[in-house]
Amino acid sequence: MVERAAAVAMMARMELVELDDVRTAAGVLEGVAVRTPLLAAEDGLWLKPETLQPIGAFKLRGAYHAVARLSPEQRERGVVTHSSGNHGRALAYAARAFGIPAVIVMPSSAPAVKVAGVAALGAEILSVPPAERESRMNAVVAERGMAPIPPFDHRDVIAGQGTIGLEVVTDLPDLATILVPVGGGGLISGIATAVKGLAPHVRVIGVEPEFAAETRESLREGTLRAWPIEQTYRTMADGVRTMPSDLTFAHITARVDDIVTVSEEEIGATVGRLARDSKLVVEPSGALGVAAYRYHRDELPDGPAVAVLTGGNIDPDLLARLITTE
Amino acid sequence: MVERAAAVAMMARMELVELDDVRTAAGVLEGVAVRTPLLAAEDGLWLKPETLQPIGAFKLRGAYHAVARLSPEQRERGVVTHSSGNHGRALAYAARAFGIPAVIVMPSSAPAVKVAGVAALGAEILSVPPAERESRMNAVVAERGMAPIPPFDHRDVIAGQGTIGLEVVTDLPDLATILVPVGGGGLISGIATAVKGLAPHVRVIGVEPEFAAETRESLREGTLRAWPIEQTYRTMADGVRTMPSDLTFAHITARVDDIVTVSEEEIGATVGRLARDSKLVVEPSGALGVAAYRYHRDELPDGPAVAVLTGGNIDPDLLARLITTE
Repeated sequence: MVERAAAVAMMARMELVELDDVRTAAGVLEGVAVRTPLLAAEDGLWLKPETLQPIGAFKLRGAYHAVARLSPEQRERGVVTHSSGNHGRALAYAARAFGIPAVIVMPSSAPAVKVAGVAALGAEILSVPPAERESRMNAVVAERGMAPIPPFDHRDVIAGQGTIGLEVVTDLPDLATILVPVGGGGLISGIATAVKGLAPHVRVIGVEPEFAAETRESLREGTLRAWPIEQTYRTMADGVRTMPSDLTFAHITARVDDIVTVSEEEIGATVGRLARDSKLVVEPSGALGVAAYRYHRDELPDGPAVAVLTGGNIDPDLLARLITTE
Repeated sequence: MVERAAAVAMMARMELVELDDVRTAAGVLEGVAVRTPLLAAEDGLWLKPETLQPIGAFKLRGAYHAVARLSPEQRERGVVTHSSGNHGRALAYAARAFGIPAVIVMPSSAPAVKVAGVAALGAEILSVPPAERESRMNAVVAERGMAPIPPFDHRDVIAGQGTIGLEVVTDLPDLATILVPVGGGGLISGIATAVKGLAPHVRVIGVEPEFAAETRESLREGTLRAWPIEQTYRTMADGVRTMPSDLTFAHITARVDDIVTVSEEEIGATVGRLARDSKLVVEPSGALGVAAYRYHRDELPDGPAVAVLTGGNIDPDLLARLITTE
């Protein structure tokens, strides 16, 4: 109870992103982010394929919007983040679009293909021991005056991701449920802000792997609970191994209805079926919402549902294996 | 010269589909066909992912439009076609949408997965020896009064496929070239009608596999040339092994600027790269336009190009192999 009271006090001090912020972001992103269509899948389920964004993931929305909101003076000095995944690529893409420098601090353990993907976008890469990622990013901020753009703990990033929610409610006004993968929580924070602002009756449901369900536990306990890395790194859904920040957890507590979990087997089978049946290459993290609909319908509200397919950056060998497994 | 004169005389008697027919079709297809976005690929190339249509291919547009244009009395008696591929699925889908019966005559050699796909849509399947496909379809027309909807040799089918051209010109007004796979020619006939009607300066370029380049030869000779089946069936692009009809060849002769060819190696490598880089599952026939842009740019006009990705119905084992081959 002491912790819950502390959490409530913390949230009271925290300014949440609001619907108007998301609307502003939508204006900024017009002509930059792909206006992804809703695709009918099995009975009652619609897919929102953010896999089709330029860098293969929704992260472009938040990163571009955050860069666009910097003052011209700040922006000219460039941007920096630490990321081995889709956010690093997204920020590199956004920086190139604005013609400004970007530094992506990457752990030396990052696969060569991911490093090459960021390098191809013209960003400067700092390869550092994993434990030094944050300190090196802070050093770049201090020494070069670059603006730090973290992957989710940032109001403008959250507002950018929320534009997905605006599009979904516009395209399918009678939806009952939206299913959103949860890692750091920036995506579901933005989407819940947009959806609850426009259509409060729609249920916003987060989805986590059983191996990385910190947010579900945190939501039930009323305070952020960290899980050991040896636990969360067992999931193949590498995009959602992180946990929320205070900022995203405040949004989740205020606006998300529930969180459900899915197993590794369910995730893998769903990746295969999305490629075979829906013709979409989706990474394991991106398949969480569809897996929840397919295998845990009894835990979900009735009525039309939308699953956000967050990204498609999957190792080709893993994809080949999952496609050919029924 | 005698043949060319005969062809010109034949075409003069043939009434071509016009831009207004395509506009009518677009109205019919609103809310039925997915309004597919244009996706930026490599420098100067845009993708039109018709793989995202409900049955995984553009064929839905033509089939649905043709069913919609039947008189209510005709439509109530149902529709019939012979097809082992995407058109059969498309017609079954359209018939279900209208709540009318459909018979799909399929060769007994058709893979079980394709038969199951059509059966799942509620159509009646007649499995017949390959040589009897057409006669059995005609028997169904005679005995049951069903309307035959062929895959491409039909004005309403052509007009439906042409709606892709309307969307492309609307979304990218400054395109210079559109690249379209050519089999029976229904797709390129419709697209060329729309594109030349709206933007006559845009170059409409067909793409064929080297192993099934009847249309290129026919266009150069000025008359339809059939290639032996032992030749055309060597291409992995199974959706374009057929040749045009008199009707589609008349459209191609009048409105298509050129046809280029691509090799099997180029097709396979392009399928793999589309899955890895663009997160799209594309069948070999659907990759022809991108392969032409990637490997035969010197044969194409300068300026922004759009490649139509026609379908994504590929054998999972083949896809797995192509994804993991650089």
